[in-house]
Amino acid sequence: MRRYAFTKADGRRLFLYTEGAPPGPPLPDRVRGRAGPSHLRRHPLLGEWVIYAPARQDRTYHPPAQACPFCPGGEVPFRSFEIAVFENRFPALSADPGPPPELPVPTRPAVGRAEVVVYTPEHRGSLATLPQSRRRLLARVWRERYRELFALPEVEYVFPFENRGEAVGVTLSHPHGQIYAYPFVPPVPAREAEAFARGERLERWSGLAAYRVAERPGFRAFVPPFARYPYEVWVAPEAPHPGPWTFSEAELDAFADLLGEVVARLDALFRRPMPYVMAFHAAPKGVERFHFHVEFQPRMRARDRLKYLAGTELGAGAFTVDVLPEDAARALREVAP
Amino acid sequence: MRRYAFTKADGRRLFLYTEGAPPGPPLPDRVRGRAGPSHLRRHPLLGEWVIYAPARQDRTYHPPAQACPFCPGGEVPFRSFEIAVFENRFPALSADPGPPPELPVPTRPAVGRAEVVVYTPEHRGSLATLPQSRRRLLARVWRERYRELFALPEVEYVFPFENRGEAVGVTLSHPHGQIYAYPFVPPVPAREAEAFARGERLERWSGLAAYRVAERPGFRAFVPPFARYPYEVWVAPEAPHPGPWTFSEAELDAFADLLGEVVARLDALFRRPMPYVMAFHAAPKGVERFHFHVEFQPRMRARDRLKYLAGTELGAGAFTVDVLPEDAARALREVAP
Repeated sequence: MRRYAFTKADGRRLFLYTEGAPPGPPLPDRVRGRAGPSHLRRHPLLGEWVIYAPARQDRTYHPPAQACPFCPGGEVPFRSFEIAVFENRFPALSADPGPPPELPVPTRPAVGRAEVVVYTPEHRGSLATLPQSRRRLLARVWRERYRELFALPEVEYVFPFENRGEAVGVTLSHPHGQIYAYPFVPPVPAREAEAFARGERLERWSGLAAYRVAERPGFRAFVPPFARYPYEVWVAPEAPHPGPWTFSEAELDAFADLLGEVVARLDALFRRPMPYVMAFHAAPKGVERFHFHVEFQPRMRARDRLKYLAGTELGAGAFTVDVLPEDAARALREVAP
Repeated sequence: MRRYAFTKADGRRLFLYTEGAPPGPPLPDRVRGRAGPSHLRRHPLLGEWVIYAPARQDRTYHPPAQACPFCPGGEVPFRSFEIAVFENRFPALSADPGPPPELPVPTRPAVGRAEVVVYTPEHRGSLATLPQSRRRLLARVWRERYRELFALPEVEYVFPFENRGEAVGVTLSHPHGQIYAYPFVPPVPAREAEAFARGERLERWSGLAAYRVAERPGFRAFVPPFARYPYEVWVAPEAPHPGPWTFSEAELDAFADLLGEVVARLDALFRRPMPYVMAFHAAPKGVERFHFHVEFQPRMRARDRLKYLAGTELGAGAFTVDVLPEDAARALREVAP
C-alpha cells in the first residue's frame, strides 16, 4: 500500500491509497468546504459529551447521481483512485473547531477529526461487491488511520463506521464509510472496556455453533446471544486484539473477506440491500484488555418491515427484539449469499 | 375519576376511566390476543437486560382506519369511553411470560406489564388537541397507573411513553401512549438516579430564560442546554418530585396543560405534526432523590428533514446535534401554537 497526501483547495487533507499506480495529475478542485465552529457540552444527567455542529444543518442532502461528490472529479479531484480518505466538508469534529461558548453546563472544543473513506471510484457497490483486493486495501487503510489518528494527542477514541441506506438517513449512496476521532471515550466503548477489564470474554460466545454465521481462518462472524437488533452480526478475531492495528497482513485479509461475506448474507436475507450501521469497536487509547469486533446493526426485521427504535429503547434504554438470535443466526447461515 | 375494571375475552385486563357517566353495556369482544413467551437476556458487555418477544414480529401493522383496534368496538368493546387502558395484545412484558430458556448468557422471565393507554375514542387528535378536561383525566390515569404498577412486587420501574408518527415506526395512528412496567431499572433512569444522588439538580437549568419554552404555575417547559435531539423539550415541575404520584390535583392540571402546549408548539414549528418519542422519567422504585421530567425527542430537524440516529449515536453512543439548544428554545418560544 502506498499513500499520496494532498491539501485540497480549501485546506482539507486528502489521502489517496493505492496498491497499484500512483495517481495521475490532479483536476481542478471545485468542492469547497469550511468547517463551521463546533463544540462539546456535558450532559449532566447521563454523563455524556454531546457534539454541537450547527453548520451540519446545511450539509449535502440527496444530490443527483451526476453530482455525486464522491465520484472522481468531486471531492477527490483526480480522474480515478482506489481508496480516498479526506476530511468531512461538514465536520462534527475537526482540528480547529473554534472556542466553545460559555454556558451553564461544561463545554469543550470539539477537537478531533471527521473523515470520509470512499471505498471505490464506482458510484454503485458495497462491501459485498468490492473485489477482495479492494477490501484488503480498505482494511489496510483502516489500520493506518487507527495508527495515525490515535497518535494525535487530543484523540482518545477512533471510530470507523458505515451508515448504509436511506433507512439510516444516508444521503449519499456512493460506497463509503466514515471515521470519527473523538477527544473523549464515547459511552459504548467505555462500557465495553469496563466489561473486558472485569473479565468478560468475547470467546465465550463467538465460537458457539448455534450462533455461527460464517468464518475465515482466525475470524468469526456470529449473532451474539444477547443481540439488540434483529439479524445483528458481529465479526471478531478468535483471539483478543485491542484493534486492527495489531492484525497481521494475513489477518487483515481474512477480516476484510469475512466482512464482505457478512454484507452479502445480510443483502441475501431479504433479497435487497440491507440498511445498516456498521460500527467498529476497538479499545480506547491506552487500553490493552479489549476484544476488537465489528457490529452490524441491521434496520430491517422482515422484507417489508423496518426496525424502529422508539420509547423503550431511546427513552428508557431497554431494547426489545422480535427475532431470536438463534433464529437470526440460522437464517443468515442458511441463506445463499 | 372513576375506574371500571373488566377482563377481556382473552383474559387481558381492561380499565375504563371516566370523569362522567359509567360505561354502557359491553359489545362483543372480538379482538383476541395471547401473549407469546418472552424473556430477558443479559448483554454482558453493556450490562443491560435485553427483552426478547418473538411473538411481536406478527403485531398489527398499519391497519386501515375502519379496522383501527383503538376505536370503540375494537380492543375496547364499548360504544364509547373516555380513557381506556388495557394490556398490550403483543406484550414485551407480561404477568405470565413463561420460563426463560437456558442459554450461554444469564436469562430471566420477562415479567412485568405492557399497557396501552388510549387517550380518546376519536381516531384523530393529539395531546395538543384533546380538551384540557381529557388531558387532566389522562394525567390522573398516569398517576394511578404509576401507583398500581409500582405496587407489584416484580416491578422495578414504570415508564409511560408515547411514540408518535410513522417516522418513529408507529403503525397505529389513533391517539395513544403506552406504559411499560419493567422487572429491572433500565439504563437511562439508572444513570439519572446516579446523577441526582451525586447532587445534580434540574433546577439549575429549568429556569434559565434563554432555554424557556412555556410554563404553568409550578411547571416549566424548556430546552435543556445539553439537548441530544433538535428541538428536544423537557417538561418538569419547578421543585423536585420523584414522579407524578406526588402531584396534587392542581399540579396534575398544570402539568397536563403544559404537555398540551408543548405538543402544539412542536406541531406549529414546521406546520405539520411533529413525530416524536415522549418519555416519562420518574424515579425507580424506592429512590426518593430524583427530579421527575418528561422528555420529548422530536424526529425532525427541519420541515423536510428527519433526524436520524446512526453510527456515532448508535454505534459509539456519542450524539451529534445540528440545532443549538438556545436557537431551538427561541424558535419554540416564538412560534404561534
